[in-house]
Amino acid sequence: MNILVLGGDGYCGWATALYLSAKGHKVSTVDNFARRQWDHELGVQTLTPIRPLAERLKTWHDVTGNHIESLVGDVTDYDFLASAIETTEPDAVIHFAEQRSAPYSMIDRKHAVSTQVNNVVGTLNLLFAIRELRPDCHLIKLGTMGEYGTPNIDIEEGYIDIEHNGRKDTLPFPKQPPSFYHLSKVHDSHNILFACKIWNLRATDLNQGVVYGTLTDEVELDEALINRFDYDEVFGTVLNRFCAQAAVGHPLTVYGKGGQTRGYLDIRDTVRCIELACLNPARSGECRVYNQFTEQFSVLELAHLVQAAGRNMNLDVEINHLPDPRVEAEEHYYNARHSKLVELGLKPHLLSESLLDSLLNIAIRYSERIDQSLFMPKVNWRNAHNERRAVTAPVATMVSAGGNGHNGD
Amino acid sequence: MNILVLGGDGYCGWATALYLSAKGHKVSTVDNFARRQWDHELGVQTLTPIRPLAERLKTWHDVTGNHIESLVGDVTDYDFLASAIETTEPDAVIHFAEQRSAPYSMIDRKHAVSTQVNNVVGTLNLLFAIRELRPDCHLIKLGTMGEYGTPNIDIEEGYIDIEHNGRKDTLPFPKQPPSFYHLSKVHDSHNILFACKIWNLRATDLNQGVVYGTLTDEVELDEALINRFDYDEVFGTVLNRFCAQAAVGHPLTVYGKGGQTRGYLDIRDTVRCIELACLNPARSGECRVYNQFTEQFSVLELAHLVQAAGRNMNLDVEINHLPDPRVEAEEHYYNARHSKLVELGLKPHLLSESLLDSLLNIAIRYSERIDQSLFMPKVNWRNAHNERRAVTAPVATMVSAGGNGHNGD
Repeated sequence: MNILVLGGDGYCGWATALYLSAKGHKVSTVDNFARRQWDHELGVQTLTPIRPLAERLKTWHDVTGNHIESLVGDVTDYDFLASAIETTEPDAVIHFAEQRSAPYSMIDRKHAVSTQVNNVVGTLNLLFAIRELRPDCHLIKLGTMGEYGTPNIDIEEGYIDIEHNGRKDTLPFPKQPPSFYHLSKVHDSHNILFACKIWNLRATDLNQGVVYGTLTDEVELDEALINRFDYDEVFGTVLNRFCAQAAVGHPLTVYGKGGQTRGYLDIRDTVRCIELACLNPARSGECRVYNQFTEQFSVLELAHLVQAAGRNMNLDVEINHLPDPRVEAEEHYYNARHSKLVELGLKPHLLSESLLDSLLNIAIRYSERIDQSLFMPKVNWRNAHNERRAVTAPVATMVSAGGNGHNGD
Repeated sequence: MNILVLGGDGYCGWATALYLSAKGHKVSTVDNFARRQWDHELGVQTLTPIRPLAERLKTWHDVTGNHIESLVGDVTDYDFLASAIETTEPDAVIHFAEQRSAPYSMIDRKHAVSTQVNNVVGTLNLLFAIRELRPDCHLIKLGTMGEYGTPNIDIEEGYIDIEHNGRKDTLPFPKQPPSFYHLSKVHDSHNILFACKIWNLRATDLNQGVVYGTLTDEVELDEALINRFDYDEVFGTVLNRFCAQAAVGHPLTVYGKGGQTRGYLDIRDTVRCIELACLNPARSGECRVYNQFTEQFSVLELAHLVQAAGRNMNLDVEINHLPDPRVEAEEHYYNARHSKLVELGLKPHLLSESLLDSLLNIAIRYSERIDQSLFMPKVNWRNAHNERRAVTAPVATMVSAGGNGHNGD
């Protein structure tokens, strides 16, 4: 299968590109290295020392004999994107090429606008390019569980049957996204659903939970293939950050009461879910929605799991409750369906002590690269402007309303 | 009350600015004249010979003694918008400054992208400007009834109580917008709801139906105050277009079966609804949604009403059913609530024979300005690219999939 991975140099994109290449698919990647640029902007870096994409791909070829073509450009540049589609003739396009951090989108107006414009225009361009150049190609789009917010009813997979005043319909599940980033994904979802309807495109919208872990079978083949491991307050996902904090004796930063409950999954399940979507394409005209996660946890539950795993490794792990820098319910009902990918064949890697050990060991291994000043939240949802530029001198606390981050996504 | 009208040179904006000025409010307008530019781009013009804004405002002052300040600029330019808010110190900002034509947004990729970027960025800028500079100011945002699409259940005003698996919540009404333009309004609605939540802003989101008519008490004061009357297939709203067609003996262009049912209102009710929203501001943190229309009609019902009114004026009015250039249900259930504005005091001007006579008389009065080549639909939803540039020589039909437009909005 010809597969084009947009955002192939990012955290999920890189793991996916290698996995699909290992499975024998002809994989090409598109990336403009925006994710690396945001690291420079914020003065942060991945815990793991990732290599430049060209070196990563050369290593992949050396180790496996598999070739992954890299196309460098921006999906908001239609001419570039169209040429990428024409050149690679994809059967499936996997779209990771978006700004994916909620705190990043909440820094200030420019970051909110750039996130929404980047994500919405990239996806619109992709819809038009597929319609014009490759109408039978299957679009696999990464959405987020965050699109749903935390309603007081069960969350279904994309659509809900509603009976109202004696009449019935199946309608898009109402969305209550909690950041300008999550909003951009909701905008995308509406645009994709419409494009499928008017142009008979095929799409799978994967509402992914918070991803943890960094190792997949493929990146373990060689140190030069190592994947990102973000632990900072802007791009770090919560479990990765907790492990980095535990590794250096920093208290785990729980935002508020920590009752914020979300769906989570191992990055090894991310790549498998994408493969399952590829192998089982949506029908022409169908915009299918899967909830892509395997387990629900509250932030405090995760903190306790890390604390327990740390204890076994003789790490003394404290838990700090900080004022929540986000505007969100700190305690709430949460029950989201996630059976469709399991029905297609997903065998979840559930969060276990051995995985936590592995994560903690990675964090310990690279602990000299940890900058503790990046743990504390500096982006407060209540402010229209947050100072989040890199500082040259370490500062103990720059917290405007405190916080212990649950997820970058 | 200090009121800032964004898009004050447009169809609804102009009528609103005059009405509120006549009521004694201190009104300022913002406009970048994009609407006039789109006329040039498409080779169309309003049936009524509208004057330049400066001349209109001078006439308004001469006739009434009231001064309306005009600020010229683009709401997607944050610095300009912020200075407009700072200068005018509004108690209410009424946001009409968006691209509002569905067919325009469906011309091709560039028009889809420019519509969504223009509308989303303008509204984001406005939310940030209010938050930063005028947090107590009431945002009155023009949405559209089209955001809801045509669900098989009753449409509520913004939110719906859902009982699901034994649990209950009140959630945003699910949206199924039928064009890239309507999608932009849905994006706005989600962004506004979120901003109210995190920043305690006050907002009223008015989901307006299709507006008809051109005369309000204020524009009737002087010929130089005349409002737009769009009849072309891109910006013309359906009833105005039917009247223009009837006036020149062109068959009314009904798209498909004509069972497409929507909410409609007289422009005199538009301005009154806006005033009611101003006088009854939303609470801090509240994002209130009103459905702003007074009657439901199918397109075919409107055609028959125009045919009957024409008969009384000795106009022989034919009705043509063209293939629907839109992707939409041609027959469907439709029942939308619209009681909240009535509860605030709206006394609807229902569509009557005398109003139709008045509309037909306006069309007849300016019939020499009618370009019949602009009646037939040239924008087909099924195409990713529609040729919709002005042509120099009149062409009998340029229809790719036929059509009789129901509304520009």
